[in-house]
Amino acid sequence: MVIDLNADLGEGFGIWRLGDDLALLDIVTSANVACGFHAGDPVTIRRTCAAAVDRGVAIGAQVSYRDLAHFGRRDMDVEPEELCAEVLYQLAAVDGIARAMGGRVSYVKPHGALYTRICRDEIQAAAVIDAVADYDPTLPVLTLPGSAVHAVAAAEGVPTVSEAFADRAYTADGMLVSRREPGAVVHDPAAVSARARQMAVEGSVTASDGSSVPISARSICVHGDTPDAVRLAQAVRDELLGAGVVLQAFT
Amino acid sequence: MVIDLNADLGEGFGIWRLGDDLALLDIVTSANVACGFHAGDPVTIRRTCAAAVDRGVAIGAQVSYRDLAHFGRRDMDVEPEELCAEVLYQLAAVDGIARAMGGRVSYVKPHGALYTRICRDEIQAAAVIDAVADYDPTLPVLTLPGSAVHAVAAAEGVPTVSEAFADRAYTADGMLVSRREPGAVVHDPAAVSARARQMAVEGSVTASDGSSVPISARSICVHGDTPDAVRLAQAVRDELLGAGVVLQAFT
Amino acid sequence: MVIDLNADLGEGFGIWRLGDDLALLDIVTSANVACGFHAGDPVTIRRTCAAAVDRGVAIGAQVSYRDLAHFGRRDMDVEPEELCAEVLYQLAAVDGIARAMGGRVSYVKPHGALYTRICRDEIQAAAVIDAVADYDPTLPVLTLPGSAVHAVAAAEGVPTVSEAFADRAYTADGMLVSRREPGAVVHDPAAVSARARQMAVEGSVTASDGSSVPISARSICVHGDTPDAVRLAQAVRDELLGAGVVLQAFT
Amino acid sequence: MVIDLNADLGEGFGIWRLGDDLALLDIVTSANVACGFHAGDPVTIRRTCAAAVDRGVAIGAQVSYRDLAHFGRRDMDVEPEELCAEVLYQLAAVDGIARAMGGRVSYVKPHGALYTRICRDEIQAAAVIDAVADYDPTLPVLTLPGSAVHAVAAAEGVPTVSEAFADRAYTADGMLVSRREPGAVVHDPAAVSARARQMAVEGSVTASDGSSVPISARSICVHGDTPDAVRLAQAVRDELLGAGVVLQAFT
Repeated sequence: MVIDLNADLGEGFGIWRLGDDLALLDIVTSANVACGFHAGDPVTIRRTCAAAVDRGVAIGAQVSYRDLAHFGRRDMDVEPEELCAEVLYQLAAVDGIARAMGGRVSYVKPHGALYTRICRDEIQAAAVIDAVADYDPTLPVLTLPGSAVHAVAAAEGVPTVSEAFADRAYTADGMLVSRREPGAVVHDPAAVSARARQMAVEGSVTASDGSSVPISARSICVHGDTPDAVRLAQAVRDELLGAGVVLQAFT
Repeated sequence: MVIDLNADLGEGFGIWRLGDDLALLDIVTSANVACGFHAGDPVTIRRTCAAAVDRGVAIGAQVSYRDLAHFGRRDMDVEPEELCAEVLYQLAAVDGIARAMGGRVSYVKPHGALYTRICRDEIQAAAVIDAVADYDPTLPVLTLPGSAVHAVAAAEGVPTVSEAFADRAYTADGMLVSRREPGAVVHDPAAVSARARQMAVEGSVTASDGSSVPISARSICVHGDTPDAVRLAQAVRDELLGAGVVLQAFT
Repeated sequence: MVIDLNADLGEGFGIWRLGDDLALLDIVTSANVACGFHAGDPVTIRRTCAAAVDRGVAIGAQVSYRDLAHFGRRDMDVEPEELCAEVLYQLAAVDGIARAMGGRVSYVKPHGALYTRICRDEIQAAAVIDAVADYDPTLPVLTLPGSAVHAVAAAEGVPTVSEAFADRAYTADGMLVSRREPGAVVHDPAAVSARARQMAVEGSVTASDGSSVPISARSICVHGDTPDAVRLAQAVRDELLGAGVVLQAFT
Repeated sequence: MVIDLNADLGEGFGIWRLGDDLALLDIVTSANVACGFHAGDPVTIRRTCAAAVDRGVAIGAQVSYRDLAHFGRRDMDVEPEELCAEVLYQLAAVDGIARAMGGRVSYVKPHGALYTRICRDEIQAAAVIDAVADYDPTLPVLTLPGSAVHAVAAAEGVPTVSEAFADRAYTADGMLVSRREPGAVVHDPAAVSARARQMAVEGSVTASDGSSVPISARSICVHGDTPDAVRLAQAVRDELLGAGVVLQAFT
């Protein structure tokens, strides 16, 4: 029973902050560091990488559409050549900073609208995977099992790692319930913790119709940008440790 | 008699182009590739790096202040920690893309207002040199001999390479005449070519007062963003080759 | 027989230029001035407005998605509240500059991907129309006849003006042939001019299947960003004047 | 005894927030609304203007250098034509949004590094004043008494309004103590409130050497971006009202 806890970090920009990065770095085992396209200025990236290296937390490049004004949360029809080059640029920038701080980028996690899009759009998924393959084909992409990007990566020989969301409702066929539906997000720390334990220990999740669905995840994502984020993440960590789960990065 | 010819390349952004990159890549031996902060989107950077690799032209990271709106040409009081992180980010991004294209960044050349500033401001110069040292302390910085950044780099153990400007007037003590002065820029291709030959062959330049000034340069900069840029650069190249000078990157 | 000729202008950004604005301003009767979100820095906007006022050319606000990196050409799922505020911001900025130069914005023309999107997406169309209505409900929106934005504007009481494209192929039911299809764009100046005359004089266009389709347009759009743009626009202007058409802005 | 209380508002960007705008709008009489160049996306600007109109708070355009990455806090050598056009663009954008919300921009307050620069640089000061004069020469500029921009505005016939800073130390000759000096900023709410009362009631401030310096201010600036900002601003307001001072915008 080994699992990774990942969270989005370094998502400030200039004067603006988002979440308590240092507190979360004491909880998670993998840090998805914003790369400057939806959030993350160079100073913030460098400080976040340095703090992750200090704590032995794995660093991932949280690549995004180029959209600071909307935090990378708006779906965009970017051309594959553009998207590939934009992902490559972000990945290289953060890896270079991580290396200067004594670490390295050891995985890639797409952000926001790009994450959602490449779960179903094979063309954009291929553009992202091409960028990873061009940079370092041994870097795993952290994503949703069963998604288009998963399939594209497998075909290109790029490794993937599956993640689950302890605070999101699942359908009976193992998909995430859309955020537009009521009950899509679980807020109660006890419920979220219990779901995380079930995911890590039993390899299953209770779907919104009450059925138990098998789920295979090497990593669990905790969110960092809500007011209760740190408390929730700490509750998940404590629950997992209490259940005898080993928290360890997948890299 | 060996000299390098360098030019600024990849200085488009999105739909906008600046200069004829492919034509210049057939002329120069070193390409200062814009890194995205004053110009240079990821697609342009990737294409420019790929074309440079194809032609065996050395790739430099043309790092800049963060100022797309004014092309990095406005002096800015950026704090050292910010500037250092911003230079590191740019350098890493372009190096990563260059490596994905089969090459690598083999030197750093600051751009525009940053270039001018660090010739006299030791604090900003140190921020730039720190970034280079953090990334790869063997990367040379291409800059003006006798400048503050030259001294700072020497103290930090970062190598420097000196360049000269064939199309700029020099003072009797070997400094560039300010662009605000009349005659600061030489436009006549024959005159520019002759100055380049004198620099490469005799190691001197005729100053604006008519005196001959010794000048030590391993590289000569040709400009790419004027209408006549390609013709001028070609004239310089032809003149140098005709004088028996070997054109070769310094890296 | 009165028609307006409109073109996109002021589409440079910082150091970068696009098209020959002054030449086009001597040809067209309406200038769609970029507002800063896909192109158009404040200096360029001000110079373009001043030149338009000098020549008696009407000024329109060419509002866009916020996407300098891709020139507003990528479809985006912007939320209605965001889109409405973004359009309002752009419209107000350019109108204020136009007024400072002695003119005013007298119409609105959406740009690129936004133009295409609101021809079919009623929600985004409503966001754009809301912005216009909030700013000045008497400002007409220049758009494609029969489009969603046309219907939404009519329902909100915002006037619209219909435009036609002399250099684009039309289907038998009066729609534009997609740019992805062969023959979608007509390049021959004589053919483009003849089509413009037919549109202005006969109120029809010859569709790609050879049939004649009625088309009602108060304005004809000429493009400014191709190498031959000025020559093409001049040919259209000459042809229309030669056919006795009066060239006059619709405002 | 009538005084205005002004604060910087609307300084979020996209997902990021800064300060508690609604709480401050219940305290101040004038809101310096960020215009998008150092902070302030269109949605935030619109919401801030709407809330200000609801509460009868005067709206000012808080114009800035174009520098989101450094929050407009870095000194920049922008050319006068650029600066003038950039100020005009921002002023027009926010005024248009304010008018769409039923209000209007009734004054201009430069932000951050631009504010500081034009207190001593007549060329940049003239660029800002030119923009205001071009847009609406009756709009007052809120600034430091005795500054260069004050003199330039007087010469151009643009009105100015003087402000004082209750939380900043003053020198014996009525200038602000530099933020680099110890004791430059007063943090104790009681002390800040007492200073505000002295400014409003007695027209003087106690300088850092203990002397009493006459100070003429129609407005007092309270800061909004510190953790204690709202409490501090409320204390100043309460103190002033308790001393019989009438709080009223200057417009």
